[in-house]
Amino acid sequence: MSDMVTPETISKKSELLEPVLQHIDAEFDSAIERLRTFLQIPSISTNPEYKAEVRRCATHITEDLKSIGLDAILHDTIGHPMVVATDDSAGPDTPRVLYYGHYDVQPVEPLDEWTTPPFDATIVDGSNGKRIVARGAADDKGQLMTFVEAIRAWKEVHGSLPVRVVILLEGEEESGSESLVPFLNEHRDELLADTCIVCDTSMWDQDTPAITSRLRGIVYIEATLHGPSYDLHSGSYGGAVVNPANALTEILGQLHDADGRVQIDGFYDDVEVVSKEQIEQWNSLGDADALVLDGSGAKATYGEKGYSTLERLWSRPTCDINGLCAGYIGEGAKTVIGAKAMAKMSCRLVAHQKPEAIKESLIAFLEDRTPEGCHWDIKSFGCSPAIAVPTDSPWLAAASEAMSRIFPNPTVLLGTGGSIPVVGEFQDILGVDAVMVGFSLEDDLIHAPNEKFELSCFHRGILSQAAILEAYASIHV
Amino acid sequence: MSDMVTPETISKKSELLEPVLQHIDAEFDSAIERLRTFLQIPSISTNPEYKAEVRRCATHITEDLKSIGLDAILHDTIGHPMVVATDDSAGPDTPRVLYYGHYDVQPVEPLDEWTTPPFDATIVDGSNGKRIVARGAADDKGQLMTFVEAIRAWKEVHGSLPVRVVILLEGEEESGSESLVPFLNEHRDELLADTCIVCDTSMWDQDTPAITSRLRGIVYIEATLHGPSYDLHSGSYGGAVVNPANALTEILGQLHDADGRVQIDGFYDDVEVVSKEQIEQWNSLGDADALVLDGSGAKATYGEKGYSTLERLWSRPTCDINGLCAGYIGEGAKTVIGAKAMAKMSCRLVAHQKPEAIKESLIAFLEDRTPEGCHWDIKSFGCSPAIAVPTDSPWLAAASEAMSRIFPNPTVLLGTGGSIPVVGEFQDILGVDAVMVGFSLEDDLIHAPNEKFELSCFHRGILSQAAILEAYASIHV
Repeated sequence: MSDMVTPETISKKSELLEPVLQHIDAEFDSAIERLRTFLQIPSISTNPEYKAEVRRCATHITEDLKSIGLDAILHDTIGHPMVVATDDSAGPDTPRVLYYGHYDVQPVEPLDEWTTPPFDATIVDGSNGKRIVARGAADDKGQLMTFVEAIRAWKEVHGSLPVRVVILLEGEEESGSESLVPFLNEHRDELLADTCIVCDTSMWDQDTPAITSRLRGIVYIEATLHGPSYDLHSGSYGGAVVNPANALTEILGQLHDADGRVQIDGFYDDVEVVSKEQIEQWNSLGDADALVLDGSGAKATYGEKGYSTLERLWSRPTCDINGLCAGYIGEGAKTVIGAKAMAKMSCRLVAHQKPEAIKESLIAFLEDRTPEGCHWDIKSFGCSPAIAVPTDSPWLAAASEAMSRIFPNPTVLLGTGGSIPVVGEFQDILGVDAVMVGFSLEDDLIHAPNEKFELSCFHRGILSQAAILEAYASIHV
Repeated sequence: MSDMVTPETISKKSELLEPVLQHIDAEFDSAIERLRTFLQIPSISTNPEYKAEVRRCATHITEDLKSIGLDAILHDTIGHPMVVATDDSAGPDTPRVLYYGHYDVQPVEPLDEWTTPPFDATIVDGSNGKRIVARGAADDKGQLMTFVEAIRAWKEVHGSLPVRVVILLEGEEESGSESLVPFLNEHRDELLADTCIVCDTSMWDQDTPAITSRLRGIVYIEATLHGPSYDLHSGSYGGAVVNPANALTEILGQLHDADGRVQIDGFYDDVEVVSKEQIEQWNSLGDADALVLDGSGAKATYGEKGYSTLERLWSRPTCDINGLCAGYIGEGAKTVIGAKAMAKMSCRLVAHQKPEAIKESLIAFLEDRTPEGCHWDIKSFGCSPAIAVPTDSPWLAAASEAMSRIFPNPTVLLGTGGSIPVVGEFQDILGVDAVMVGFSLEDDLIHAPNEKFELSCFHRGILSQAAILEAYASIHV
């Protein structure tokens, strides 16, 4: 049983926290420089050409964690390295807190849409003060550095931490996490903890911190439709044989009906019906449509009829085309019928949907529509269920209270449209529920050109993590 | 009025032709080497990065024509150069023959599917003897070299040609021919001729030469659907805003009905109904389906219901997607909703269809289906009508007869699914009907990786052009 955090325990501990917060303020310029150096390593995990850079990035953060005084080890895997760092200086009677982040990043294409090079990590002026522009700034290097910098500050000020910590940094989050489950199983004993902070989510807005309790799952495939053996001249063969690009659009064009409902067999069979109370709580958070339009630059919201934007994002499954490629895509005209046409596609899943079944049904949707003489080549990337964590734990309450002290507004509870499969793996393998705290904003352009992280978010994020460390020390385990 | 060619006139002239044919045989290895050198210049006209190479190619062929003894000039244009070469050594009483070919080539993507580099011009063994593999081998450098080499042989053997010739070589055929009409108007007097040979078409098969009398027209556009301002994370925004890639497939998927008929408004309004006799002549040519399957590597023919394959290719319009690009198309998975989605599309047109009207109707088809908050950016590349040339001219008869003497089988009359806009411009501006003779095969993979030209086609093509030169000398103008 754990004691609840009370105002009394918080004030008693604040003598220790206050100098840490002051140290973070004083040393913030150094923290920015460390983040820039980290961001300048192009650790793109999904592209094999960057394998050495991913490893260089793992080595860099391992050395940084050692320099703080943590016991840090780079573990090779069949994919990209895992970094584990521990500090037991708080002693065996304190809670043990597992921290998770990922040091790998998304690809940068389309490169020509970046206003500054994605791995220069340039500081620029934005509408909310200075920001750092780089691939990985918000997802997830900037976020994981909030707890690294908080730990650094505690160590520099007090020489020790208020709780025991174990940090796990992954290098395959953006590429399917193939090594994660084997690694968690193999290193289970080292990673066991009383609670866990996963730092890869957003705030509600710049002044309102958030804890995320619901995550959508995902199924991701790449499907290539093969027709003729060669690329053909569209004059010589147009009208005589199947054009795979025509066929692909005809097939994918059937994925949604006129109401935006996904037409894959059984897609909605297991979808959880969300309570009216939950929907009302979401809809009371504020103008979600305005946030979505502002963050996306879209002129209108769009989606499955009959649901509000937050309902669609947090509780309804989707099917999206993430990539299309066929024929000639360079400048100018080429009168070609491509031999094949490719689509990358993913479904975001909600509670109770079964990822493997949805994947099979998506593939069957394609196979059932294969034109005569054509065939599909299908690759699978990632397949994970939706997740919900309990919202009544003392860890969540303490983190919420700690962040409320740092930010102008109190902490709110959110769902999110994205997927963080590690949260489910921690539940299954380590038996620990994650507290998902994160400091990015909806308009941080994660996965897009000009990804950024507000320096104010970085600063308040570090302060929040320092306060959470103290708050967790008050919880008896 | 022109005299018809008779067996008598042919045999009288053969004393001059015979040593030319022998010279072509004896010097064929040199001709191959000249073709290889020509093919090694990457004259890709549609990609601005290759502008200097296109000019280098024009300079190369200009110098080659000068070396034969022709009066050759490279003319700069607002696009790529035009090359004009003349020889009036036959004297003013002989017919003047205009030759047309193009020295520019298609792009080479996908480069990794070439078994030898596209500009190495490698000689390899094939099922029908040796062949030369290179971008432009059949389309159109190898083809235009058939008349260049025939002219070279006549000049080397006799010091003069049997007819006056003017050669026009274009460098923009694969990129919209923007300079062609202004150039024809400006240089009309130099280009006027009694007949014209356009060398950019196919034979029926390796042993059966052909003259093409029907060409489909073309409309080509690139349409980009813009939605959000940025590429978005598919978790954070999937289900909340329009995914342009989803929308593009939904729109393009409506281009054809279940019978393969194009759904663009008014698309079939002006389509010529081909006579039963014409269709019977085509269907008697041989097993067109087998040729199409063999040439394309497709497992089945496909297209508009109710028409044979040759009818569809030569007399029915089409709408094909020539390129698709959206979101992430590199290796692996990226959970992105792309800000835009692009399709390159073309319609092949048949007699009486109005290209501008079809283009407007195609654009209206897209605009009518624009999702709320999205917009299209549309570029136009090429817009030309279908063409038919008279099949009862003495020039066509003489060329047909000359080729029948070189090949095992007699010459046949074909349509073609492709477009050669210059044939229409010659009709309009120079008042001359083209005789379309060509020596490529259906399986030459033009516009595709591993484009090739059979050395036997090249050889017989040169011999045929030499024989046509002699045959044309017998026609009084």
